[in-house]
Amino acid sequence: MACCGRGLCCQCCCSEGDTSTPEELTILGETREDEDEILPRKDYESLDYDRCINEPFLEVLEGLDNKKARKYEAIKWILVFAIGVSTGLTGLFVDFFVRLFTQLKFSLVGQSVEECSESGCLALSLLELLALNVMFVFISSVLVLVEPVAAGSGIPEIKSYLNGVKIPGIVRLRTFICKVTGVLFAVAGGLFVGKEGPMIHSGAIIGAGLPQFQSITFKKIRFHFPYFRSDRDKRDFVSAGAAAGVAAAFGAPIGGTLFSLEEGSSFWNQALTWKVLFCSMSATFTLNFFRSGINFNKWGSFQLPGLLNFGEFKCVDGDKTCHLWTAVDLAFFVLMGMAGGLLGALFNCINKRLAKYRMRNVHPKARFIRVLESLLVCMVTTLVIFVASVTLGECRDLVSPNNNTSTQGSVNEEVNSTIRRFFCYNNTYNDMATLFFNPQEVAIHQLFHQNATFSPVTLSLFFVLYFFLSCWTYGVSVPSGLFVPSLLCGASLGRLVANVLKINFHMQIYSGTFALIGAAAFLGGVVRMTISLTVILIESTNEITYGLPIMITLMVAKWTGDFFNKGIYDIHIHLKGVPLLEWETEVEMDKLTASDIMVPNLTYVYPHTRIQSLVSILRTTVYHAFPVVTENRDNEKEFMKGNILISNNIKFKKSSVLTRAGEQRRRCQSMKSYPSSELRNVCAEQTAVEPAEEGQDILQQMLERRHVPYPNLYPDQSPSEEWSMEERFRPLTFHGLILRSQLVNLLIRGVCYAENQSSASQPRLSHSEMTEDYPRFPDIHDLDLALLNPRMIVDVTPYMNPCPYTVSPNTRVSQVFNLFRTMGLRHLPVVNAVGEIVGIITRHNLTHEFLVAKLRQHYITI
Amino acid sequence: MACCGRGLCCQCCCSEGDTSTPEELTILGETREDEDEILPRKDYESLDYDRCINEPFLEVLEGLDNKKARKYEAIKWILVFAIGVSTGLTGLFVDFFVRLFTQLKFSLVGQSVEECSESGCLALSLLELLALNVMFVFISSVLVLVEPVAAGSGIPEIKSYLNGVKIPGIVRLRTFICKVTGVLFAVAGGLFVGKEGPMIHSGAIIGAGLPQFQSITFKKIRFHFPYFRSDRDKRDFVSAGAAAGVAAAFGAPIGGTLFSLEEGSSFWNQALTWKVLFCSMSATFTLNFFRSGINFNKWGSFQLPGLLNFGEFKCVDGDKTCHLWTAVDLAFFVLMGMAGGLLGALFNCINKRLAKYRMRNVHPKARFIRVLESLLVCMVTTLVIFVASVTLGECRDLVSPNNNTSTQGSVNEEVNSTIRRFFCYNNTYNDMATLFFNPQEVAIHQLFHQNATFSPVTLSLFFVLYFFLSCWTYGVSVPSGLFVPSLLCGASLGRLVANVLKINFHMQIYSGTFALIGAAAFLGGVVRMTISLTVILIESTNEITYGLPIMITLMVAKWTGDFFNKGIYDIHIHLKGVPLLEWETEVEMDKLTASDIMVPNLTYVYPHTRIQSLVSILRTTVYHAFPVVTENRDNEKEFMKGNILISNNIKFKKSSVLTRAGEQRRRCQSMKSYPSSELRNVCAEQTAVEPAEEGQDILQQMLERRHVPYPNLYPDQSPSEEWSMEERFRPLTFHGLILRSQLVNLLIRGVCYAENQSSASQPRLSHSEMTEDYPRFPDIHDLDLALLNPRMIVDVTPYMNPCPYTVSPNTRVSQVFNLFRTMGLRHLPVVNAVGEIVGIITRHNLTHEFLVAKLRQHYITI
Repeated sequence: MACCGRGLCCQCCCSEGDTSTPEELTILGETREDEDEILPRKDYESLDYDRCINEPFLEVLEGLDNKKARKYEAIKWILVFAIGVSTGLTGLFVDFFVRLFTQLKFSLVGQSVEECSESGCLALSLLELLALNVMFVFISSVLVLVEPVAAGSGIPEIKSYLNGVKIPGIVRLRTFICKVTGVLFAVAGGLFVGKEGPMIHSGAIIGAGLPQFQSITFKKIRFHFPYFRSDRDKRDFVSAGAAAGVAAAFGAPIGGTLFSLEEGSSFWNQALTWKVLFCSMSATFTLNFFRSGINFNKWGSFQLPGLLNFGEFKCVDGDKTCHLWTAVDLAFFVLMGMAGGLLGALFNCINKRLAKYRMRNVHPKARFIRVLESLLVCMVTTLVIFVASVTLGECRDLVSPNNNTSTQGSVNEEVNSTIRRFFCYNNTYNDMATLFFNPQEVAIHQLFHQNATFSPVTLSLFFVLYFFLSCWTYGVSVPSGLFVPSLLCGASLGRLVANVLKINFHMQIYSGTFALIGAAAFLGGVVRMTISLTVILIESTNEITYGLPIMITLMVAKWTGDFFNKGIYDIHIHLKGVPLLEWETEVEMDKLTASDIMVPNLTYVYPHTRIQSLVSILRTTVYHAFPVVTENRDNEKEFMKGNILISNNIKFKKSSVLTRAGEQRRRCQSMKSYPSSELRNVCAEQTAVEPAEEGQDILQQMLERRHVPYPNLYPDQSPSEEWSMEERFRPLTFHGLILRSQLVNLLIRGVCYAENQSSASQPRLSHSEMTEDYPRFPDIHDLDLALLNPRMIVDVTPYMNPCPYTVSPNTRVSQVFNLFRTMGLRHLPVVNAVGEIVGIITRHNLTHEFLVAKLRQHYITI
Repeated sequence: MACCGRGLCCQCCCSEGDTSTPEELTILGETREDEDEILPRKDYESLDYDRCINEPFLEVLEGLDNKKARKYEAIKWILVFAIGVSTGLTGLFVDFFVRLFTQLKFSLVGQSVEECSESGCLALSLLELLALNVMFVFISSVLVLVEPVAAGSGIPEIKSYLNGVKIPGIVRLRTFICKVTGVLFAVAGGLFVGKEGPMIHSGAIIGAGLPQFQSITFKKIRFHFPYFRSDRDKRDFVSAGAAAGVAAAFGAPIGGTLFSLEEGSSFWNQALTWKVLFCSMSATFTLNFFRSGINFNKWGSFQLPGLLNFGEFKCVDGDKTCHLWTAVDLAFFVLMGMAGGLLGALFNCINKRLAKYRMRNVHPKARFIRVLESLLVCMVTTLVIFVASVTLGECRDLVSPNNNTSTQGSVNEEVNSTIRRFFCYNNTYNDMATLFFNPQEVAIHQLFHQNATFSPVTLSLFFVLYFFLSCWTYGVSVPSGLFVPSLLCGASLGRLVANVLKINFHMQIYSGTFALIGAAAFLGGVVRMTISLTVILIESTNEITYGLPIMITLMVAKWTGDFFNKGIYDIHIHLKGVPLLEWETEVEMDKLTASDIMVPNLTYVYPHTRIQSLVSILRTTVYHAFPVVTENRDNEKEFMKGNILISNNIKFKKSSVLTRAGEQRRRCQSMKSYPSSELRNVCAEQTAVEPAEEGQDILQQMLERRHVPYPNLYPDQSPSEEWSMEERFRPLTFHGLILRSQLVNLLIRGVCYAENQSSASQPRLSHSEMTEDYPRFPDIHDLDLALLNPRMIVDVTPYMNPCPYTVSPNTRVSQVFNLFRTMGLRHLPVVNAVGEIVGIITRHNLTHEFLVAKLRQHYITI
């Protein structure tokens, strides 16, 4: 029975699905029929939220008193404020230009239509519109070519980042510029996309970038500001930035905070949450301040919340029978929630197939194909908008506001100013044109607040057209949000329900509420967010009494939708192969223990290792961390000479072969299973090495590699060939964990000592030297080997993480998962009862797919 | 140098402060001068949030599939809904009767005043009022005598509970009844107390009690419902209940959710948070539904949020120059925040001294003294209310609503209906009486929305009187909230500022906003809550645009206040000596490691132990958990015969004396320090044992007890006297942790086997048998020893927690703290590099006071 060695793993991830052996598929629980199932990829790096407290850090700590800690804290507050303000300004920028371009476009074309509806030159108007839209979308699409990760809403990427997966290029300045400018033109170009998702992404980039005071894109931006150079701090700021993005987009600071908690937080950190809320508030009110100033010339007041706001839901004062909603309506809301869930699931299903189609047929081709696709979508959309507006609309009566002094008056005034009268006269308006021939936000306002009715046919047609077009659009190579299209889609549905109830059943209902609930239901069905979406919608309506209906609708929509598939963001994360960790494991998974899921074949380093060995290990493996271990060999003392290890290094005698035998069996078993380790672009290298080993038994190879990480290079250290099986499985006492980046750093900075010296003579690096190159640490392959003396010895003990959290091999998966997820770990060593490391658990060993496969395997062995 | 043995510890906690030796005080960093400093008490039990996955649980797991898991989940949702509805109904009950009694009282007395102001029989009116108030407060106070923990707001207790400390009686049905009825009469009795805090407590009790379907108070309530019988589930439900309480009290479902997150959550659990939000929503809208029905006869509509609501802040429509607030106002808000912080700190300081005075002089005396104090407070309050209303008020012009159709109209209508005209005629009103002679909620409404002005003198006087009276009242033996009095106090201050700005500086401001900000500032200064308070206030105003000013005010108030002292709830928690864990440790604490803070003297059990030994251990110690260890002795095999331990039981040779010596030194050192272990009411017993050991060296005793947990009783197991020092410190391999309750349970149910049998013959307990007695497990002293055969052996391995989280001795305190706090642990074993347990960390070892003392000790040894 063939084993899946590293060579195979590599092939698995590089040329997916083609080379996996039947055994592997059985273990994975997949058959060849499900070929299109996408497994989490191994080439994403993880973030590490846990702190590595070692000697350089302790030196920093010694110099730290409460005063300095307070200063550090103050800097954080200032940065958070700056992030909020910048995000607000970004929102302002986008909003201003979108408004400008859209107004320009619609006034130009609208005017032309009004003129042409008499002279019959409508084709000309269409051409005008088409030309403008195509131009805008072309710019947007070209910007995405520059930085491909700027496509889409960015929420899946930010969600992944906050979950702990580093997605290359996602928080770079170039991405920011492309995203912001791109979304501006995409929206202005009349595509059915929102600017909210991209706002969240932009906020996150600001959060990640601003506190660094340096840029990879623009090398000139490089101030000396050596704080916050760690994944931990960066992730905190990204949370704040993403929250600010939501806050700016929806005018929902609390919703934003909850968004970043829901998507990103693994544990509740009060101080951080408080900062995040402050950041959200700053963003909301910065935007608010400038928009009130610019749009109403009321500088100093704060009257306009977020980019998207739902207007005021309010009964006319005199009308005593009017209720926003009653207990009876709740039943309809539940039904609408179910409908929303179903339609959302359909939307997600279609979009998933589309995305897969794109991955197979569009992405491998030349990049300009993507631009062409965007332009095609743009043209179809424009055509639909135009044709539908001109031909399918009905002329409906405008209800004149029934009393002049009501609050409704001002809302109506605003709403009525945006209606379109194409071909309709005498106090009537064209309902289809009003919805299609306006910015999406205005259309939502119309559906929520227009007292006049829309014809059911118009609403149904609008829904169907919008549903399919926005489904097609999401995934096209432009920055595109999904919130606004979904809301609009759902609102039209809700309004339709309201129409039916009002006219056919003569119920006393408030149409706006039904439109809102419809919007919530469909959006909930598509994105499946829970707490944060509820709060965002409540805040957007600025009406706390909508809490219950919105929540119930979202709950029902989510449950209904979850019956069929996952939320759209999760689907796209899945399609990208990001190894996302869920909230918790299923109860069933507790049948597995840590030893069932760990990677047993380790590549390790000794506390004192020759440079030769280190370079060899670093060059031949792709792991991001190495356990620091001591072996129970006679020459161990040599490496320990004069140095007291940080951990309690209590030596013990070789354990009996008997106990080891069981472990060996388990290891062999595990090796057959799902390949798990962090690999990164090593196909080329690996395949070059592979052929030499082809003839041998793969299991044997694996076992050897397990103990011979650098074979035959340095006879003074590597285990010799004549080792017995017992010696191969000798215990490895665990002392700490060192990262690849740290090792490379040590090598580059020449931290080592000669064999005849004491390790105390080794130069010491400070904390700032260790973190200087963050976030891009140099690669081992960039290292000039000529500069290194291979016989020198590196003492890694001052730099390793001396006491990472560990688990015992019998720990249940739920506990392992909780620890890993909550503490934001990257590597979790599995250490047995006598302190020997028996395996290591990484993010990949905890993904849902991996656990399911392992559980299936578990059932088979039973 | 004397050591603090267990005898001393016990004395420390029983007769506080009197018997501590100078050494102990030095270690604690306290001198005799600070005698009134209160240290965390040791007699609180901790909750355990972590799950103990052992064989009985695995049996349950085997029978569990996804369908059952879903059913379990559905039950949770239903329960959560039931908790929300019950809390809402409780709120309704309290509100209804408070309203009834208060209306009765004020209409009776008000009428009498109106009549007497002519006939001059005011004294009679006063007597009437006095009689009613004293009666109400008497009832309330007597109820608290029945269940003393029902006194106060209950928030400190709930906060402690959610933090993981079990406070006796806090979530019992009797407490609930006393609290709910008590608060009703306290509020009706005209005391300056709110009903919001008690609502939160009531909600929490409902959360804790309802899913249990049994009651300790009423034995008849006992349904068979064996789910959720664990601290973990109970704490989740308590979170939900507390959130529902907030939601019902303030009409703030999101704020409630955030409250329970802020106070209770250590990690972000999406599924739980979603349930909590649903629970809050249920509570809010249940209350809303019934209140709308009862008060407005509008059944089916949902128009009245929470018990306390702030009315609608709204500019008059026609008035284009009106703003709720502008950028300029923000500067004043910051200043008001500072003032609020200062005044709040003053309030807390006075209240703390008062509480200490009460603890020393009132509490030790007979209980009826407390009733007398409540009555005294009640009489003084009544007198102040009456005299101030009658003599100190000014007659102010009533501003007639300037336009009839505005929304303001309806608010004003309501506001104007509650003004008091005592001695004022001709469209004027008595401003002092309006504030004092109304329910507090009405007074707040007056300050927020009354267009007419209050005289600055009245406002100042009102503030001063209210400040001191409410400060005196909080801590009196009645159920009493602090939110409403603080809000009212602050609102008068804010209104005063508004008056000054408006009249003296002729600024265009909205008085209501200033009153609101004043209220927020003072409340923030007193309670120092952050995120949740911000959201609660935003939701109460139902105006998202107040987000920024409220947040900034609360931030400034908190920072200013924190400069002087802690929040009122934290002060009271501290006074109770609850070992609360903060959010995180200070950065400086990282200078300490786990080995610095752990308890090194362990009482342990073997995997297979004789009943004799177990009984002896359980009777002579007070620990709540015992590590299960194996020693490196020859007769160990006897206990292992035929049984494979759950953990990887790999034996190893005795370690060298050399390594142990260092450990011994550290242990000796640690033993001198702060006594730490969970003690419970063992004074009586302990003192009986103590005398025999008096003559000996205490350290020696401690060392002996460390290894001789059951001296001379069972020569077959206990270490003999001739042991060398080396043998005393022989390694103890750690295998798991077993709780006292589990051991007692095993003994009671006769789980054991005879020496000549295999341990497989031991009867097995199911999961439900293990948890049947939750939450009150039988005590070892209730056990009838005659029923037990002392020579039988108990195999604890199937019942122990086989793999609790552990840390290495070198782990930094921040990491230990994070693990402990986030995972909600109760015991954290410290295990060295070769799997030997060297100590254990409990909640007491992580309290701020303990860490500070240890850090000081650390500095001294350097």
